[in-house]
Amino acid sequence: MTEIKSRKNPLIVHLKKLGADGDYRHERGEFLCDGEKLLREAVQNGAEVRAVLTSAGTPPWLPDGVPVYAAGQDILASVSPLKNPQSVLFSCAAPAPGGEPAAEGAVLVLENIQDPGNVGTVLRTANALGIGTVVLTGSCADPYNPKTIRATMGAIFRQRILTLSFDGVAALRTARRRLYGAALAPDSRNIRDVALHNAAVVIGSEGRGLSREMLGLCDEKIIIPMSPGSESLNAAAAAAIVLWEMARQ
Amino acid sequence: MTEIKSRKNPLIVHLKKLGADGDYRHERGEFLCDGEKLLREAVQNGAEVRAVLTSAGTPPWLPDGVPVYAAGQDILASVSPLKNPQSVLFSCAAPAPGGEPAAEGAVLVLENIQDPGNVGTVLRTANALGIGTVVLTGSCADPYNPKTIRATMGAIFRQRILTLSFDGVAALRTARRRLYGAALAPDSRNIRDVALHNAAVVIGSEGRGLSREMLGLCDEKIIIPMSPGSESLNAAAAAAIVLWEMARQ
Repeated sequence: MTEIKSRKNPLIVHLKKLGADGDYRHERGEFLCDGEKLLREAVQNGAEVRAVLTSAGTPPWLPDGVPVYAAGQDILASVSPLKNPQSVLFSCAAPAPGGEPAAEGAVLVLENIQDPGNVGTVLRTANALGIGTVVLTGSCADPYNPKTIRATMGAIFRQRILTLSFDGVAALRTARRRLYGAALAPDSRNIRDVALHNAAVVIGSEGRGLSREMLGLCDEKIIIPMSPGSESLNAAAAAAIVLWEMARQ
Repeated sequence: MTEIKSRKNPLIVHLKKLGADGDYRHERGEFLCDGEKLLREAVQNGAEVRAVLTSAGTPPWLPDGVPVYAAGQDILASVSPLKNPQSVLFSCAAPAPGGEPAAEGAVLVLENIQDPGNVGTVLRTANALGIGTVVLTGSCADPYNPKTIRATMGAIFRQRILTLSFDGVAALRTARRRLYGAALAPDSRNIRDVALHNAAVVIGSEGRGLSREMLGLCDEKIIIPMSPGSESLNAAAAAAIVLWEMARQ
């Protein structure tokens, strides 16, 4: 195992940039993760682990051939953008962000959800409830931001995530799948009355809701009915309810 | 309007302590809030506003008789424990934490949920979905922690919150209301198959679930069914699903 003693080591510089810079992550097709639990999830789910940096020795279950580097906890702390990094950091190859969604089945679409914690929690909930695909569109938080990854609690390695343009979202409408927009509008239908197990549902940001363009694209508007005085739900809480309705048979 | 120029002013010291110290909040029966939007919610919902500290003038809609103090933004920043405090801070009288829950109706109970953001999001969701009472038991985050309050988005002034001992939770079981515990156990019933509109449901921490004592108290265990490989949901996401099922008629 190679030992790294300098913060200027090229691998340290590379990992730090993966943690801090979304454009660099995208360019390199690689992302930074934090913690032994997540590393185990990565290995179990067949992710391509590119480098492991540890201040606590090599985990005995790590497959042969994964490059492992030792470093002090001060160097790990300098790499991670998280407040309290654990004793293991590692980088993984990111799957390609595009791809073709299946022609049927439930799809959750997030438009302009900028909080990484919310995006991560939605990915975690979708995976737990067995919803095959989550689509990100507009200016959502990067799913490979370290804060997003931490909030997914490992679902980042199990959940199919597509980043689609507006036209890509439009193509989710098929003969077998309708597109619904979550909207606080007087003509929105109560989501309890709509079958969502084979639908695409778009959720927007808490503050502003869906873009006008996206609303225009949707076949119909749906709403989670709320008490008077309540204007909105937290985006991850609203998504949990939508995903739960999608999972209903 | 009185102007405050020193961080050592007794009101500044008092407000700062309200933001930082849960015991002091409890002792004084008062809590610190952040932002003009929340102040408007407080006024609209009849909360007793004790003092307003502002770097941006008195809001024109503030009722007569509320004491308003001017101060620079640097003094506001020194008072608030939040990263980016707004131009208005204020303190409110806290309702008494105990009280008697009604003999029927849905009640959500949180046991040992320590993240203030999660507790705040649960209070916001419960209020939006019209669930009358949320109970906190064990070592939950303080509902009057500034981070909790921010996450409630105003629901702190609308939602009934009770802090109950173990015996208090036991008393939620009445002739008309059963007590369910959310648990990852082989004999847990799928929550889709259980009528929750008149039930008390206890949710525990993500890491450890419910305490053994609490599980022993419950009439029955329920579960949100999850995909293989997923161990848990975020506490606020799980609560959203439970609250949504409680709101089902």
